[in-house]
Amino acid sequence: MRTQVGIIGAGPAGLLLSHLLHLRGISSVVLERRSRDYVERRVRAGVLEQGTVDTLIEAGVGERMLREGLPHHGIELRYGGAGHRIAFEKLVPGRAITVYGQQEVVKDLIAARLAAGGDVRFEVENVAVHGLEPDPGSGPYLTFGDGERLDCDVIAGCDGFHGVSRPSIPEGVLTVFEKEYPFAWLGILADVAPSSEELIYARTDRGFALHSMRSPTVSRFYLQVPADTRVEDWPDERVWDELRARLESVPGFTLATGRITEKGVTPMRSFVVEPMQYGRLYLAGDAAHIVPPTGAKGLNLAVADVRVLTEALAAYFAGGSTELLDGYSAACLRRVWRAQHFSWWMTTLLHTFEDEDAYGRRLQLSYLDYVTSSEAAATTLAENYVGLPFPDDSRSNVL
Amino acid sequence: MRTQVGIIGAGPAGLLLSHLLHLRGISSVVLERRSRDYVERRVRAGVLEQGTVDTLIEAGVGERMLREGLPHHGIELRYGGAGHRIAFEKLVPGRAITVYGQQEVVKDLIAARLAAGGDVRFEVENVAVHGLEPDPGSGPYLTFGDGERLDCDVIAGCDGFHGVSRPSIPEGVLTVFEKEYPFAWLGILADVAPSSEELIYARTDRGFALHSMRSPTVSRFYLQVPADTRVEDWPDERVWDELRARLESVPGFTLATGRITEKGVTPMRSFVVEPMQYGRLYLAGDAAHIVPPTGAKGLNLAVADVRVLTEALAAYFAGGSTELLDGYSAACLRRVWRAQHFSWWMTTLLHTFEDEDAYGRRLQLSYLDYVTSSEAAATTLAENYVGLPFPDDSRSNVL
Repeated sequence: MRTQVGIIGAGPAGLLLSHLLHLRGISSVVLERRSRDYVERRVRAGVLEQGTVDTLIEAGVGERMLREGLPHHGIELRYGGAGHRIAFEKLVPGRAITVYGQQEVVKDLIAARLAAGGDVRFEVENVAVHGLEPDPGSGPYLTFGDGERLDCDVIAGCDGFHGVSRPSIPEGVLTVFEKEYPFAWLGILADVAPSSEELIYARTDRGFALHSMRSPTVSRFYLQVPADTRVEDWPDERVWDELRARLESVPGFTLATGRITEKGVTPMRSFVVEPMQYGRLYLAGDAAHIVPPTGAKGLNLAVADVRVLTEALAAYFAGGSTELLDGYSAACLRRVWRAQHFSWWMTTLLHTFEDEDAYGRRLQLSYLDYVTSSEAAATTLAENYVGLPFPDDSRSNVL
Repeated sequence: MRTQVGIIGAGPAGLLLSHLLHLRGISSVVLERRSRDYVERRVRAGVLEQGTVDTLIEAGVGERMLREGLPHHGIELRYGGAGHRIAFEKLVPGRAITVYGQQEVVKDLIAARLAAGGDVRFEVENVAVHGLEPDPGSGPYLTFGDGERLDCDVIAGCDGFHGVSRPSIPEGVLTVFEKEYPFAWLGILADVAPSSEELIYARTDRGFALHSMRSPTVSRFYLQVPADTRVEDWPDERVWDELRARLESVPGFTLATGRITEKGVTPMRSFVVEPMQYGRLYLAGDAAHIVPPTGAKGLNLAVADVRVLTEALAAYFAGGSTELLDGYSAACLRRVWRAQHFSWWMTTLLHTFEDEDAYGRRLQLSYLDYVTSSEAAATTLAENYVGLPFPDDSRSNVL
């Protein structure tokens, strides 16, 4: 069996890549270890940058997102007993975020791939990468199942942090950059209408809390918790008590509660490998980099990688030029590090740190005061949050 | 002997306060431990914010500063083999900095005080603060020399970090906030024309370096050095070698060298006490707070304190209202913490930290790339560097 691009992983990165390639007339096969049902239910990110929204619309998979997604033109920073709105419509006119669950994006992409006759295979075991070495005697190829073989011109590793793509690159090729935070997030999904129309990022002396939503009837919450937290230690009553303590710090705000349908602990970690490629294998999304969820950048970064990779592959298959493919990693990494930095920035701005002394806490509050009172500082938050423009975007306000 | 305001310290804070009070018809006596010659030669800060320049002009002591000071409309951030200009004229129109040595400000203020018949006493020993306790049976007063006594309505502690004012406040009243950095600055004064028209803040893997100037023929340099550095370890040749290694990282830039006339090691430290007042004693400038020199905020913060204190004292002596005096500390501290934060921000953006790993270094470079490419981020640097407007300044771009 043969295809132009062998794609490992049917998450947002792999599916979107497959679909964008299809629109350019480039064939691909997607191999996914999990079931379709599993990937369509997997709850992950839910905040889409303007550029991600634009990309999905341009790819023809934005119809339901435009209908059901919730466009937001601001977020609230809550601290010191008051809420402060970061007003995107004023600070970054024309750009906003859309709240739409990652699993919904995945559903839309799978439906679009299948409708277009795309080859997306689920529950594929034993995927392995071959033929990456220089002068291997053959092109790259994948094996899977009971010895099936997929020959390809190029392989895209879109199989996440724990996938097989990255470890198939020989030792010594990649440089790893990483950081662990001394806390985690307890994520809660609840059947209750959101208590606020916009996201609330709350900094309190008890720790950070985030009020978010997935739909007009489903709320999503996160609580900063110790890194070793077990879900069993958080019965529903404790979850609500703590959410109330951290979010009801503003006069007149009452947290609506409802049935909790999911609880999970997310570690807070940063990770980058450089370069994001080896031979004819290109890593995209979580396979190459992960961020703590504070800045809502993970999914959006995967989409940005895929945009760059699509252009590079289109140039390659159109005329044989490897220039863009060779520059893929370098083209992605500036944005990757910007997102890494922004995620660190949002995390340190809003979380409590056990080793922080009184001076550090005052500094943090002063920074929050600055971000919520200086137009320039508020714009740095807004422009990173809605997503810095792609280089080919005319709505750029870079110097 | 009696005066309305007893001022301890003839640095910029004490002298400016005395002069501003004189212009409002309020009497003061300044007591200074050092000689006039000493304070007029003491090399300290040299970057005046727009608000500081405006204040000195309004006070009638700006004539020589306007003639000899060097207005700068930008600074350069140098890293990764290239220089990036932060253009104040574009980012914060109408605001700039003026390079003019602190000792020159002190000379101008002393001359103005003496010309106006002001009472400024040098080489005054044994200054002590009395009568601060609630219901002390007398107003506050100062003793000095061999038992002389100066009765006052109010005492202003403008005697720096090591002065007697702050320690005269009873234990338990003040909360101290502080931070030490694991490095120091080696400061160099040299008889050589500056090699660049504007200040250069250079981040290198060897550590930070700053190229500055005092006049068209005198250059000022700083090198990040270990905290325990002794001046004796830095013979002239080593100083120039290291400055070249850190500053000549840009093609075409050559560092001009000359006779070194002064070398000194400055610790990098942050310190704040809250509140900045007790009874009828008000602390201003370094007596209440110090910052690492990276953001050039120390002198400017002292001037800001003195502006607030002058207004409060004018209201008090005009009608007996203590409202502004009672709110003095709160009115100053927001700006103090903004400057503390900005100084920390500039310091961490530009220095190397021994405990920083590869991830942290990439984050720092990504931040520098952002600050030099996003208009909003560059504006946050520019607006803090030229000095955020005073609340009564119409050139405000706060939200």
